[in-house]
Amino acid sequence: MIPTKGYAVKDSKADLAPWNFERREVGPHDVQFDIQFCGVCHSDLHQIKDDWGGAIYPMVPGHEIVGKVIKVGSHVKKFQIGDLAGTGCLVDSCRTCENCQEGLEQFCLNGSTATYNAIGQDGKTPTYGGYSNTIVVHEDFVLCVSEKLDLAAVAPLLCAGITTYSPLKHWKVGKGHKLAVLGLGGLGHMAVKFGVAFGAEVTVLSTSPEKEADAKKLGAHKFIVTTDEEQLKSATGYFDFILDTVSAPHDLNLYLSLLRVNGVHICVGVPPTPYEIHAFSLIGGRKSLAGSLIGGLPETQEMLDYCAENGIVSEIEMIDIKNINDAYNRMIKGDVRYRFVIDMATL
Amino acid sequence: MIPTKGYAVKDSKADLAPWNFERREVGPHDVQFDIQFCGVCHSDLHQIKDDWGGAIYPMVPGHEIVGKVIKVGSHVKKFQIGDLAGTGCLVDSCRTCENCQEGLEQFCLNGSTATYNAIGQDGKTPTYGGYSNTIVVHEDFVLCVSEKLDLAAVAPLLCAGITTYSPLKHWKVGKGHKLAVLGLGGLGHMAVKFGVAFGAEVTVLSTSPEKEADAKKLGAHKFIVTTDEEQLKSATGYFDFILDTVSAPHDLNLYLSLLRVNGVHICVGVPPTPYEIHAFSLIGGRKSLAGSLIGGLPETQEMLDYCAENGIVSEIEMIDIKNINDAYNRMIKGDVRYRFVIDMATL
Repeated sequence: MIPTKGYAVKDSKADLAPWNFERREVGPHDVQFDIQFCGVCHSDLHQIKDDWGGAIYPMVPGHEIVGKVIKVGSHVKKFQIGDLAGTGCLVDSCRTCENCQEGLEQFCLNGSTATYNAIGQDGKTPTYGGYSNTIVVHEDFVLCVSEKLDLAAVAPLLCAGITTYSPLKHWKVGKGHKLAVLGLGGLGHMAVKFGVAFGAEVTVLSTSPEKEADAKKLGAHKFIVTTDEEQLKSATGYFDFILDTVSAPHDLNLYLSLLRVNGVHICVGVPPTPYEIHAFSLIGGRKSLAGSLIGGLPETQEMLDYCAENGIVSEIEMIDIKNINDAYNRMIKGDVRYRFVIDMATL
Repeated sequence: MIPTKGYAVKDSKADLAPWNFERREVGPHDVQFDIQFCGVCHSDLHQIKDDWGGAIYPMVPGHEIVGKVIKVGSHVKKFQIGDLAGTGCLVDSCRTCENCQEGLEQFCLNGSTATYNAIGQDGKTPTYGGYSNTIVVHEDFVLCVSEKLDLAAVAPLLCAGITTYSPLKHWKVGKGHKLAVLGLGGLGHMAVKFGVAFGAEVTVLSTSPEKEADAKKLGAHKFIVTTDEEQLKSATGYFDFILDTVSAPHDLNLYLSLLRVNGVHICVGVPPTPYEIHAFSLIGGRKSLAGSLIGGLPETQEMLDYCAENGIVSEIEMIDIKNINDAYNRMIKGDVRYRFVIDMATL
């Protein structure tokens, strides 16, 4: 077994603190890479607090993981020692169901294995995430990372990046479309970058007027303060798509009214309470409310390659792992532009 | 003005009773046709009771109207005296907005004019529906009806027919698809007929086990009693599409779980309370919840032509207009297979 250093919580009330554990030996199809940077996703906070239930403690969070390969299994062809590598939200899946066969491992019918807070496909081994110094992952779930980009700023692409890239690609958002991005946080700022890169007219919808300058810097063409009724009303029936990154409760009927006929409102955030949708909000314009979840492995690689070709990375604030609990408190207050990334050298 | 006989309610508590009123003279682009049959839509009941607000009394319901042309305006080319004609839920729209230009008059940005319980495009003249002996409609909103089909059974196509035909066409439901039809009533039974005609595998989801034989007779391949948890569970992840015709409150999360990845749940009913949707119900499978509203004029004509070619009509029970209030009571109890049609000769 491989001795590993990390940060974990021991229960839902504890702070993150140093914890030593072991990872499996590198099998014939495994890749071991030393973690250089790990992004801090808002879902890390939900999971350590057991907001979604079923938490497994001790829990080592982190699913935006990049670093350098230090060992490869005998059958591994895709990676060599010294290559940059990344792992996102998934480390395994059944690989045999129709969704896995189509490269939609996030929808594995037998249950994909999350990078942390999950039990592996063997039915017994817990998974531990990227707030740690090294990781062993089956090669199929390790992504190739380009040397072209700032590695720290690549880390958030593994979750925030693919979560916004995938729905924009799936619904073919691009030139000629009017895209609204609801919420300008870790996910939202990536949605702006991709939306602009794909050629859409991008409007940021935000409760925070002070984010307008940032939104424009990120490439957004328009900005609407959602607490300003007049501004909102002026956008009635305007958008083809709304990418909704908000995980706080909010009234979707209001946003559905901003869509034109055949418009699609795509949710990638998970509010704690159900959405309340009036049937007329959908029927009056043949509108759709849809959800999207990260992306499969092939699409995640495609996204990373696209980012390398187009110079797209996340906007980050680098932190020392000793400050992770403070960073969580700042994240709760929305005080992050736009993603914390842990410099794992500080471990 | 044209003296007209009909049945109306004088307020939200009144029964339908005979009422005489006037229709406009036939203008250069108008068609007048004598109404032979008018379908009874569940929304007639909602509207006379002012369930949706904004009711205009006296109200003459009815928007599934068929009959014989008796007079045409000087500029009318599409119709001659003696032709069969029909009018559905709309009698006018602005004709200039982008939706009207695309033949999506039901989504007219300036407000289409409903066949009854509405104010015309002149901003002052109330519209009166098909529970009457004759009607005057602009030729653009009059549909050609084939002589091939049973005319009484054609009437419900104008609302129940197009309401189910349009979403199945829009989402390209057909061969290779597994379609569930939720609710086997006036809309649902038409959805079964169209789904089968388009080549889909059709399953009826119903709370009423006694409807299974009927469902099969209508062409459905499978039948699931939705109150039987085991039966429902066996269909988890099974359907590509669910066409939801239910206008009573129901838990959509349950039905969304029956969809496979990329599945679409299409609502055409309007429950009185909002749907409560958990974000995970959509996100866990990139699913969509959509709405659809009747159809535009070109598509309604296409649907009528398709029905004529393929021998599709509604299953009806003919009633005397004197029994309309009893028919409403039976409709409330779900005691109709599957659409009441008023024989207007009884007026």
